[in-house]
Amino acid sequence: MNRLEEFDRRWEKKNLGLFHADPRYREPQPSYEPCLWKWKDMEEALKEASEIVSAEEAFRRTIAFRNPSLKRGATHTLLMSCQTVLPGEIAPAHRHTMTATRFVIKGGGAQTTIEGEPFPLERGDFVTTPSRTWHDHYNGSSEPIIWLDGADGPLIRLLEIGFSEPYGAKQQECTKPSGGSLYELAPARPSWVSPDPIQPPPYRYRWEDTEKVLKALGEKPGDPFDGLLLRFVNPLTGGPTLPTISCEIQMLRPKEVTKSHRHTSSAIYHVFSGKGFTVIGDQRYEWESGDTFALPLWRWHHHGSRSGEGAILFAMNDRPVMEKLGFYREEEHS
Amino acid sequence: MNRLEEFDRRWEKKNLGLFHADPRYREPQPSYEPCLWKWKDMEEALKEASEIVSAEEAFRRTIAFRNPSLKRGATHTLLMSCQTVLPGEIAPAHRHTMTATRFVIKGGGAQTTIEGEPFPLERGDFVTTPSRTWHDHYNGSSEPIIWLDGADGPLIRLLEIGFSEPYGAKQQECTKPSGGSLYELAPARPSWVSPDPIQPPPYRYRWEDTEKVLKALGEKPGDPFDGLLLRFVNPLTGGPTLPTISCEIQMLRPKEVTKSHRHTSSAIYHVFSGKGFTVIGDQRYEWESGDTFALPLWRWHHHGSRSGEGAILFAMNDRPVMEKLGFYREEEHS
Amino acid sequence: MNRLEEFDRRWEKKNLGLFHADPRYREPQPSYEPCLWKWKDMEEALKEASEIVSAEEAFRRTIAFRNPSLKRGATHTLLMSCQTVLPGEIAPAHRHTMTATRFVIKGGGAQTTIEGEPFPLERGDFVTTPSRTWHDHYNGSSEPIIWLDGADGPLIRLLEIGFSEPYGAKQQECTKPSGGSLYELAPARPSWVSPDPIQPPPYRYRWEDTEKVLKALGEKPGDPFDGLLLRFVNPLTGGPTLPTISCEIQMLRPKEVTKSHRHTSSAIYHVFSGKGFTVIGDQRYEWESGDTFALPLWRWHHHGSRSGEGAILFAMNDRPVMEKLGFYREEEHS
Amino acid sequence: MNRLEEFDRRWEKKNLGLFHADPRYREPQPSYEPCLWKWKDMEEALKEASEIVSAEEAFRRTIAFRNPSLKRGATHTLLMSCQTVLPGEIAPAHRHTMTATRFVIKGGGAQTTIEGEPFPLERGDFVTTPSRTWHDHYNGSSEPIIWLDGADGPLIRLLEIGFSEPYGAKQQECTKPSGGSLYELAPARPSWVSPDPIQPPPYRYRWEDTEKVLKALGEKPGDPFDGLLLRFVNPLTGGPTLPTISCEIQMLRPKEVTKSHRHTSSAIYHVFSGKGFTVIGDQRYEWESGDTFALPLWRWHHHGSRSGEGAILFAMNDRPVMEKLGFYREEEHS
Repeated sequence: MNRLEEFDRRWEKKNLGLFHADPRYREPQPSYEPCLWKWKDMEEALKEASEIVSAEEAFRRTIAFRNPSLKRGATHTLLMSCQTVLPGEIAPAHRHTMTATRFVIKGGGAQTTIEGEPFPLERGDFVTTPSRTWHDHYNGSSEPIIWLDGADGPLIRLLEIGFSEPYGAKQQECTKPSGGSLYELAPARPSWVSPDPIQPPPYRYRWEDTEKVLKALGEKPGDPFDGLLLRFVNPLTGGPTLPTISCEIQMLRPKEVTKSHRHTSSAIYHVFSGKGFTVIGDQRYEWESGDTFALPLWRWHHHGSRSGEGAILFAMNDRPVMEKLGFYREEEHS
Repeated sequence: MNRLEEFDRRWEKKNLGLFHADPRYREPQPSYEPCLWKWKDMEEALKEASEIVSAEEAFRRTIAFRNPSLKRGATHTLLMSCQTVLPGEIAPAHRHTMTATRFVIKGGGAQTTIEGEPFPLERGDFVTTPSRTWHDHYNGSSEPIIWLDGADGPLIRLLEIGFSEPYGAKQQECTKPSGGSLYELAPARPSWVSPDPIQPPPYRYRWEDTEKVLKALGEKPGDPFDGLLLRFVNPLTGGPTLPTISCEIQMLRPKEVTKSHRHTSSAIYHVFSGKGFTVIGDQRYEWESGDTFALPLWRWHHHGSRSGEGAILFAMNDRPVMEKLGFYREEEHS
Repeated sequence: MNRLEEFDRRWEKKNLGLFHADPRYREPQPSYEPCLWKWKDMEEALKEASEIVSAEEAFRRTIAFRNPSLKRGATHTLLMSCQTVLPGEIAPAHRHTMTATRFVIKGGGAQTTIEGEPFPLERGDFVTTPSRTWHDHYNGSSEPIIWLDGADGPLIRLLEIGFSEPYGAKQQECTKPSGGSLYELAPARPSWVSPDPIQPPPYRYRWEDTEKVLKALGEKPGDPFDGLLLRFVNPLTGGPTLPTISCEIQMLRPKEVTKSHRHTSSAIYHVFSGKGFTVIGDQRYEWESGDTFALPLWRWHHHGSRSGEGAILFAMNDRPVMEKLGFYREEEHS
Repeated sequence: MNRLEEFDRRWEKKNLGLFHADPRYREPQPSYEPCLWKWKDMEEALKEASEIVSAEEAFRRTIAFRNPSLKRGATHTLLMSCQTVLPGEIAPAHRHTMTATRFVIKGGGAQTTIEGEPFPLERGDFVTTPSRTWHDHYNGSSEPIIWLDGADGPLIRLLEIGFSEPYGAKQQECTKPSGGSLYELAPARPSWVSPDPIQPPPYRYRWEDTEKVLKALGEKPGDPFDGLLLRFVNPLTGGPTLPTISCEIQMLRPKEVTKSHRHTSSAIYHVFSGKGFTVIGDQRYEWESGDTFALPLWRWHHHGSRSGEGAILFAMNDRPVMEKLGFYREEEHS
C-alpha cells in the first residue's frame, strides 16, 4: 500500500478520497458485448409461456432479450421484449415513467388503448406509448398476437427516476375514436392541437403507410451506413420518435452492403423480413427474419443483405439522449 | 400657418422635419373595407378570359379579386385570384420571391410542377409554392381547371423585396416522381430529409385526406370563432403553412354561428361549399358556394352557416407575419 | 385600348381584373434613394426647435430625418429622428405598437423610464423600448440632452397595425430601481426571469461596456463588409435587438475599407465619431461625426474610414423582419 | 422454485427471460442517502494531500466528496471535489467528455486555460469547462488556491460514453487574451459569435458581478423553495449552465426558512458563507461556511439560514438532464 492508498484508507471514514483522474487516452469501452437472439428460441419460449402463464397473469407473458453481459436490458440504456397476448386476453392498464414502443411482428386484430384512444395493432404497425401515458392492451382477434416491446427501462434505472402506477380498473374507458389521432395529427391539423415541448403524442405508424414509403423510395441511394433509413418522427414537430428513443425502419436492398461506422448511441435491431448479416467489431452475425440483435455503443459495424428480396430491419436506439446531452459522436471507418 | 408648420417648411429643403407624434388613443384603422365577390361574376369573367386570352398568353388567364379600396390586393398584404388553364395548356415556368398557394375549386386532372416534382391538382387539393421555388402548370385533362391563386404579393410590394425570374424553358424537367413528397415527408421519414429553418417544402394536401379529417372530427366543438378549423401546417415541423401565410379549412356545421372577435391579421375567405353569412363590423355579407370575401384587420366579425349541410370555407391569412414580428393581437367581443 | 385593357375596364365595376404577371427578370428596385443628413443642419434645427417648441409640447421636439423619396421614414421600414430634452423637461408617458430605440449622441444625466424602471441615459448609451411598453423621459441634468430615436414606424404603417395609448399621467411611477435590469438579466440570472417568446425586455447597453468590447476586440479582423461589427442582442436569448430591428455598432479602423455587398435589408447609419465615406451604387457619400445616412435595400455598398482614429457608426436595420419572413438575401460583390 | 422461476432458469442459457413488470405503485427510491461533509475535515485532508502529493502528481491533488452509499460520486449523476494547486504548480492540459465546473472557495491569483483562453480564478469566481474542451490550470500566486471541481462524471459512467485525451504538452499556448470571452459574449456581441446548438462556450462568471446581482436584488422575495436563487446561464442563449448541469447561487436572507418541495433532480450544495440548516426527509443537517452536502432526488427538503448575515450556497444539480429527457417532476409539500 503506497502513501496515496494509505491516505485514501485513512480518509474513507470521513467520506473523502483522492480523485483518480487517469490522464491517458481513453475511448468508451461498453460494459457489454453484442448479442444475437434467434427467432426459433423466442418462438418456442413464447409458446411455453403461453401455457404456463395464466390469463390473470397475462401482463407477465413478456419475454425479454437479456444481454448476458448486463444485469438487465439488451444495451445499457434500452430493453426489448416479445409480448404475446392470447385471443380474448387483456393486459391491464397502468402507466410509468418508462417510455414504451410496440412493433407488431406476428398476428393482428388487437388494440392498445393509450390515454383513452384505442390504437389498432396489425403486423408491421409501430405504436408509441410516451412516458406516463395510461395504457392497456386487448386482443379481440381469434389468434395470438406477438409484438416487440421496446423501452428505455435500463436508462430509467440508471437515472433512478422511475414512477409506476396501476390504473385502478383493468381497462381504460375509450373516450376517443379508434384512429382519431391519425386525423388529429395530420398536416391539415385541427386548431386545438398544439405540441408539448418535450413529449410527443401517442401515435400509430401504420405498416401500410410505412410500406408505401419504402416502395416509393426504394431506388433512392439512402444512407451510406444504414441503407434506406426511415425514422419514425414526432408527427407534430418532426422531432425524434420519443425524448429518449429513436425508432427506425431500415431497408437493405438485395446484396446491399453498407459502409462501416461507429457512434456513441447503442441500438437493438429486429429482422422484420429477409436475411443478411451485421459485422460488429471483428465478429460477423448472420441473421434472418425474426432474429434480434444488440449493438453496443462505439463499436464499428456495417450491415449487408443476403437474400434476393433484401431485408427490412426495425431498429431502436438511444441517439436522442446522446444528442440532447451533447454526447453524440460518430465516426466513419476509413 | 403656425410656427411649427413654418419650421417644417423651412427645414424641408434639408430633409428634416418635426416628428408628429400623436399622443391620443389610436387603434388600427385599415385603409380598406371588406369586399364580397360573387361566383357568377368570376365565372363569367373566366369564360370571357378563356376566349380573349390566347394559349401563348395562358399565364395571363388569371383574374384577381380587386379590393376597390386598395391599389392592389384583396387585403393590404394578401392577394387572391382565379386561374383557369384550358385542356392542353401550359403556364410557363418561373419563380419569384412571392409565396403562392393553389386551391382547386373546379375540374381536375392537371398538375403543377414545383422544383422538378409534379403535383396532381384535383378539386379541393391545396398545394404550396414556397418563395423562390420554380413552378409551371399543365392541364393534361379534357376540361378546363380553375384554381384559387393565393399569394403575399401586396406584402412583397410593401417590403419592396420582389425578385422574379423566367425559367428559360417553358416547362421544368420532372426529376422526381409524382406524389414523391407525400412519401418523403410522412411521419416515417427518410434520413435525408431535414427541415429548412424558414421555408417549408412544396407540398400537396390532398382533398381526400382533408375530407377524412373533417369527417372524423365533425362532432368536435372546434374553435369558438371559426367552427371546426383545420390549419395546413408545414409537414416537416408543424409550423405555419408558409412563413408569411396561414391557410385553413373552416367547417361551419349546419346552423352553427360563431362568436365574434377581431385580430391584427387580415384574411381572404372562399366558399368551397354551402351557404352562410359573415358579419363584419355592422355589415352582414351573405355568401354561397364559389363566393370570395376579404376581411380587413381589427374588424369585429363572426360567421354563420345557413344550409342544411353546413358550409366549408377555404381561408388564407397573414397571421404568421403578425406573430413573428410581435404584432399579433386578438380580442373576443364581450 | 387593346382587348385585355378593354376586359379590365369592363370588369372593374365588379372588382375583378386580369392579374398582370410580368414574366421578365426583376430585382428589388427600392422606391427611394440614399440620403445623407449633415450634423450642422440637424444641430441648427434642434436649436431652433428648442426655442419654438414649448415645455408643454416637449414631446414634439423631435426632428425626423426625412428621406425626400418617401412620404415618411428614412427607409421604407425605418425612421430615425433626433430628440432633445431640455433641463427639467419631461416627455410624457405613453406606449404604442411601434418599437423604439434611443442612442444618446450628446449630453447625459437624463433618464427614460420604461415599464416602471428608470434607465440612465449617458452619451453612447443604447436603450430599447420594445413594442407596447410604457415609457416617458426626463432630463434632470443642467444641459440639454440629444439622442437618436430609431423606430419601425414606417413598417407599422405599411402593416397598418399601429396602436397608441397615452398613460394618463405625465410620468410613470418608478417601481423598479435604476439599473435593476442590468442585474436581472445578467448571466447569473434570478430564477424569476424567463424570456418572452418574441419581445425582449427593455434594456440599457451602457456605452462604457460597449467601448470596453470595442477596445478588447480592436485587433480582430471583424466582418469583411462592416469592419468590427457588434450587434446589440436580446440579453435573455441572444436573439436580435428587437423583433423588427437590429441595432449595431460598427468600428472602422484607421484607413479600413470594407468589401462591397448588397442585401434585402435597409439601414440607417449615424456617425458616432470619426470621418469616412460610404459608396452606395456609384455615389460616394463623405461623412463625419454627427452625420446620418440611409441605405436602401439591395444596393451595392461599402464603407471606409478616413481619419487617423478610425470611425464608429451606430447602425439600425430591418434584417430581423427579412430573416423571419424568409426574405433575407445577401450577395458579395465579385 | 415456482413454474415461472423454473421457466427463467431454463431459458437463461438462450439469454431470454420473463420480463418482471411490477404492477404496484412505485416512486423513485434513490440508491443513496444524503451526506454532509465538514469543512474542517476537507481542509485537513487537503493539507495532508499537499504534503504527500508531489508537484509532478499535481493533477491528483483533488479530493472527492464520496457518498458512502455510492461507488462513486456525491449523487448518482454528479461528483464534487476540492482541488488545491500550490504556488507555481501546473495541472496539466487534457480534455474529456466529462463536463467540469470550478468554483473558487479559497485563495486566488490562479488561472485555468480553456481552449487557449486564460480565465483568472479569484474567490467566488465560477468557470465552466464544457465537454471536450482542452484545459489546464496554473497557480501563479504566492499562496495555495482551493476550488470546487464539479462534474457529471457519474452520469458519463452510467451512459458509458467517456472519452479522455492528454494534450501532449503540459500547458496549452494562450491564443486568446485573458478575459476575452467576457467581451465576446457580452450583449453588444461581435458578428462572428454564434451559439453552438448544444454546448455553451467556456465562461467565467466573476464573483464581483455575482455579488452585485445579489446586492441589487437582495430585497426581492425570490424563490419559495430556494431563497434568492441565481442561475448561471449560457451567456449566448440563456439556456442552462451546461447541457447536463445547472449551477446556482442561493442566498438565504437572515432567518429565512424556505418551503419544502421535492424533485427528480439531485443536487450538491456548498456553503460559501454563513450558517444554516437543511432538512432532508426527517433528518436535519446543520451546516456552516465551507461545508458541503448532497441531496438525493425525490426527497422532501427545505433550507434555513441561522446567522445574522444570512447564508450563500453554491449549488450544482442535474436538472437539465431530467428536463431534456422529459423526466423532470417537482412537487410542493402540502
